[in-house]
Amino acid sequence: MLEPLAHIGRDPRSGGYLRDAWSDADMELRGWFAGEAARRGLDLREDRNGNLWAWWGDPSRRPGVVTGSHLDSVRQGGAYDGPLGVVSAFAALDLLRERQVSPGRPLGIACFTDEEGARFGMPCMGSRLLTGALTPERALALTDDEGDTLADVMARAGRKPEAVGHDPETLATVGTFVELHVEQGRGLVHEDRPVGVASAIWPHGRWRFDFHGRADHAGTTRLADRDDPMLPFARLVLAAREAAGRHGVVATVGKTRVSPGNANAIPGLVSAWLDARGPAEPAVRALVEELTAAAGAGVREESWTPEVGFETTLRDRVARVAGGDTPAPILPTGAGHDAGILATAGIPSTMLFVRNPTGVSHSPEEHADQADCHAGVVALADVLEDLCR
Amino acid sequence: MLEPLAHIGRDPRSGGYLRDAWSDADMELRGWFAGEAARRGLDLREDRNGNLWAWWGDPSRRPGVVTGSHLDSVRQGGAYDGPLGVVSAFAALDLLRERQVSPGRPLGIACFTDEEGARFGMPCMGSRLLTGALTPERALALTDDEGDTLADVMARAGRKPEAVGHDPETLATVGTFVELHVEQGRGLVHEDRPVGVASAIWPHGRWRFDFHGRADHAGTTRLADRDDPMLPFARLVLAAREAAGRHGVVATVGKTRVSPGNANAIPGLVSAWLDARGPAEPAVRALVEELTAAAGAGVREESWTPEVGFETTLRDRVARVAGGDTPAPILPTGAGHDAGILATAGIPSTMLFVRNPTGVSHSPEEHADQADCHAGVVALADVLEDLCR
Repeated sequence: MLEPLAHIGRDPRSGGYLRDAWSDADMELRGWFAGEAARRGLDLREDRNGNLWAWWGDPSRRPGVVTGSHLDSVRQGGAYDGPLGVVSAFAALDLLRERQVSPGRPLGIACFTDEEGARFGMPCMGSRLLTGALTPERALALTDDEGDTLADVMARAGRKPEAVGHDPETLATVGTFVELHVEQGRGLVHEDRPVGVASAIWPHGRWRFDFHGRADHAGTTRLADRDDPMLPFARLVLAAREAAGRHGVVATVGKTRVSPGNANAIPGLVSAWLDARGPAEPAVRALVEELTAAAGAGVREESWTPEVGFETTLRDRVARVAGGDTPAPILPTGAGHDAGILATAGIPSTMLFVRNPTGVSHSPEEHADQADCHAGVVALADVLEDLCR
Repeated sequence: MLEPLAHIGRDPRSGGYLRDAWSDADMELRGWFAGEAARRGLDLREDRNGNLWAWWGDPSRRPGVVTGSHLDSVRQGGAYDGPLGVVSAFAALDLLRERQVSPGRPLGIACFTDEEGARFGMPCMGSRLLTGALTPERALALTDDEGDTLADVMARAGRKPEAVGHDPETLATVGTFVELHVEQGRGLVHEDRPVGVASAIWPHGRWRFDFHGRADHAGTTRLADRDDPMLPFARLVLAAREAAGRHGVVATVGKTRVSPGNANAIPGLVSAWLDARGPAEPAVRALVEELTAAAGAGVREESWTPEVGFETTLRDRVARVAGGDTPAPILPTGAGHDAGILATAGIPSTMLFVRNPTGVSHSPEEHADQADCHAGVVALADVLEDLCR
């Protein structure tokens, strides 16, 4: 199902994907989305924040049912996280047409911009801007590894940075949102079921720790004269793991920047990104406070998403319809999603998960069996048919 | 004195220099060197390894006296490390001509390629290849951060990778080598002298530690299920500092690579470069063995340079001439230099150091006062005049 996208942004050495927002790969994926919309006679729109919408029916009269996900990836990511939801959306629409369903509400397919935050460090950028959860001032000033701002990058891609921001008109077209996603754990493996429904998204956030030291020569600077920021950084990594266990949450340092990054120089600055999540906000907050106090570094919260509990009436209805004879299992997740951002903005939202045999995600080994992907499409079509009545 | 080079490869944000070997900045610096040689009527040669030589007189009949250094930099390096020696070489030659000295031996000015090893992780690449201390097979296969090999990069710069390697003919032109360099410590500050002479270069090396783990999602992977390579990496950083103190050496982790490097993903691989040096080889070796045993990682020695004790007869002669009335102080250094590689290859070599008020090096704050730089030029001219008799 993902075959047409398999080559786009793929690192031939690792097999992992490099699909940063607004990169050449992302532009190619956007082109693919437009082609799929055109092939089906859907009305394509790009909103002010770069999110794509393909409509069957006109949502300006009546809010529609929207499904979809994102096409960008984490760096060296897998093939499924994001694209499975978009590809399944088109396939489910095809299935509805095969079934000769004539939806009573407009049906939309969405592709959100920069869900992973790989480039600018801000996950769910497109949906956060759309809903007003992120101000355009803050977003446009974010920089990538090259030092280019989002404003620079969007302008270069021919978009209008000055138009970015809260977009109530577009938001008003979305009556209900359904996001299908590969599971990023092994809950469905334990349940022995191909498809499940999300109960909640853990509260989660991202913090940047800047450890400043004094850049100097690695050979000629005595140990006593050093102010080496690599040392407090290393202590943060170990403290985060220990404290996460104690607080019953997860904490990860997966990204660092060492400046200047010479083997023969003591760094002047080490930046580290802490990702922390858990079933309850107070435990996550306690962890971050404890690490901040110990670090003696500049700490900045780059993003914070409170717990999202998806609306239970919609959730239970979707679980009944998606499960066939037996309602689909209902599972929480530690991963953030655009569906969570929309739910927080008051849009009835729900998520379908497709079984992941190893649970591995954000890695080239991410996988879902073909039969399970097809079960996902059928479940999604059933849910859309039900919601469009 | 360094004004003509001040803009080349300078990061306008930090003021640091980015002068990787064979980069655009390096090509511009090579062009500057060629221009300076031409202005003075010197005979310019580029050897098979990319080192530049500007000759006053013909060294094919009789080996000459060579002075010089390098023009590449560490990333975010300072203005003086390398260029001061090359600029002072041209200035000293001008001074000899002003003095109407007619040297009895050919006088050469050298610029060695890739002294810092910022791009391929191999310091003193040009002089190591020239002397046969590094095989062309190993050098050409080294890769930069983009995954390009030295062979790719040299071919793109219009050079012949197949010609790289031990070059006895070029080496035979170098009778004596004198490298002037900014001091990378505060020895001359304590001596209250503008210029000193090197006694020895500490034995030093560079090791790459590869910590393999399992890339996975930062939000959905339980702590117990993780194989996060950031943790043993952090333990290495702390262990290196502690063990260095115990062994009486210095050890630095100044460069790391985290793959894939997403804030929301557990890394699959963390690579770290350990730089270790000290006054005695056994202590450095003991440190590295201890860290290797503790790391449980793949460890590869990327470079190793045994102690270089500069020839004492030449050293004392140079100290007498360079010092004016009182012989110049004689100091050891923890920094590697091309002069050390040439000395190890049996070429009588010596180094002049110019006072560095803060001792800071490999950083934009690296500095030497103008008066001291001029004292360095006069000392170098005196030494060259003496050696060319």
